[in-house]
Amino acid sequence: MSLPADILRKNTTLSEKKIKMIVALYKPFKTRRNQEIVSRGEVARHIYFVVKGYLRVGVTNSVGHQFTRFLIEEGMVGTAFPSFVSQKPSTASIRCVGQCEVLRLSYQDLNLLCKKVPEFETYYRGLIEQAYIQAIHRIESLISMSAYERYRLLLKEKPKLFQQLPANVIAEYLGITKETLSRLKSRK
Amino acid sequence: MSLPADILRKNTTLSEKKIKMIVALYKPFKTRRNQEIVSRGEVARHIYFVVKGYLRVGVTNSVGHQFTRFLIEEGMVGTAFPSFVSQKPSTASIRCVGQCEVLRLSYQDLNLLCKKVPEFETYYRGLIEQAYIQAIHRIESLISMSAYERYRLLLKEKPKLFQQLPANVIAEYLGITKETLSRLKSRK
Repeated sequence: MSLPADILRKNTTLSEKKIKMIVALYKPFKTRRNQEIVSRGEVARHIYFVVKGYLRVGVTNSVGHQFTRFLIEEGMVGTAFPSFVSQKPSTASIRCVGQCEVLRLSYQDLNLLCKKVPEFETYYRGLIEQAYIQAIHRIESLISMSAYERYRLLLKEKPKLFQQLPANVIAEYLGITKETLSRLKSRK
Repeated sequence: MSLPADILRKNTTLSEKKIKMIVALYKPFKTRRNQEIVSRGEVARHIYFVVKGYLRVGVTNSVGHQFTRFLIEEGMVGTAFPSFVSQKPSTASIRCVGQCEVLRLSYQDLNLLCKKVPEFETYYRGLIEQAYIQAIHRIESLISMSAYERYRLLLKEKPKLFQQLPANVIAEYLGITKETLSRLKSRK
């Protein structure tokens, strides 16, 4: 569970004392299998650091189909971000894929840290920049690639996903049906 | 040209002296009609504040089709962000729609401001958070809506775009062809 400390040591010049104080605010949380940790309509009150497993940030469209906005992998940080920043009800839900171990940091603690520890704010700003860049790449692939090209790109960049996640989660992430995914897989 | 000063006054408690010092780093830049201010393969060295007109951040896919990743409107800030943050060559280009007036802040000056003026970093962090939220909404619409639903949403949220921008720019933003857009427009 010392992962956030290691990341802070690597990316900042914060003292060990400050790192210890910061990491004490990340609370460990062991989920139930496939638990929905934020429901649609609820406010996302925490940002999550994934120690083990995957979190799936999902939305439902006007006719009830599920889509996966983001997958948060081991070692990554995420939440239902628009709700977290505004502290207003979320249009997305966060669900564990299987059983997960996460560390969660509350909205209040994060903002207090940013206010009191400028170097933490710089670190957090870097996190948001990287998340935004990931989102930009996702937009690019969605507007400029075919479903087959997106499938090939994901297979190349994140082969582990295909071993660790059920087909429906992958299909929802690619924005296609499970049947289309199965057709793409058999294409040579 | 006092727009960035007004925004800093509204969103921070920075002194007038500091605001004056910051705003002096935003350099005015009048573009030529449809000028490409960042080309694909070039490094994005500035972040742009749009005073007048629209900037179009565009990408080209594997078969040479153009797509619009983002449209940066009057009063908004943007750049080819992945290139700007990494200071590596951009996969996207930035082109003016018509003639634009922009203020540009260099990568070096922005980072110096973040380092020296913690409150500026908080303001800039807020900008990135909002840009990330916009990107998340764009991902949601791309994975969960039909082209017609995306067209209706854009018409509802940003009706001005349809008066001010040529049809091909709108189509490229929606990720569809000009012909499909024209078909959607005639649908009741």
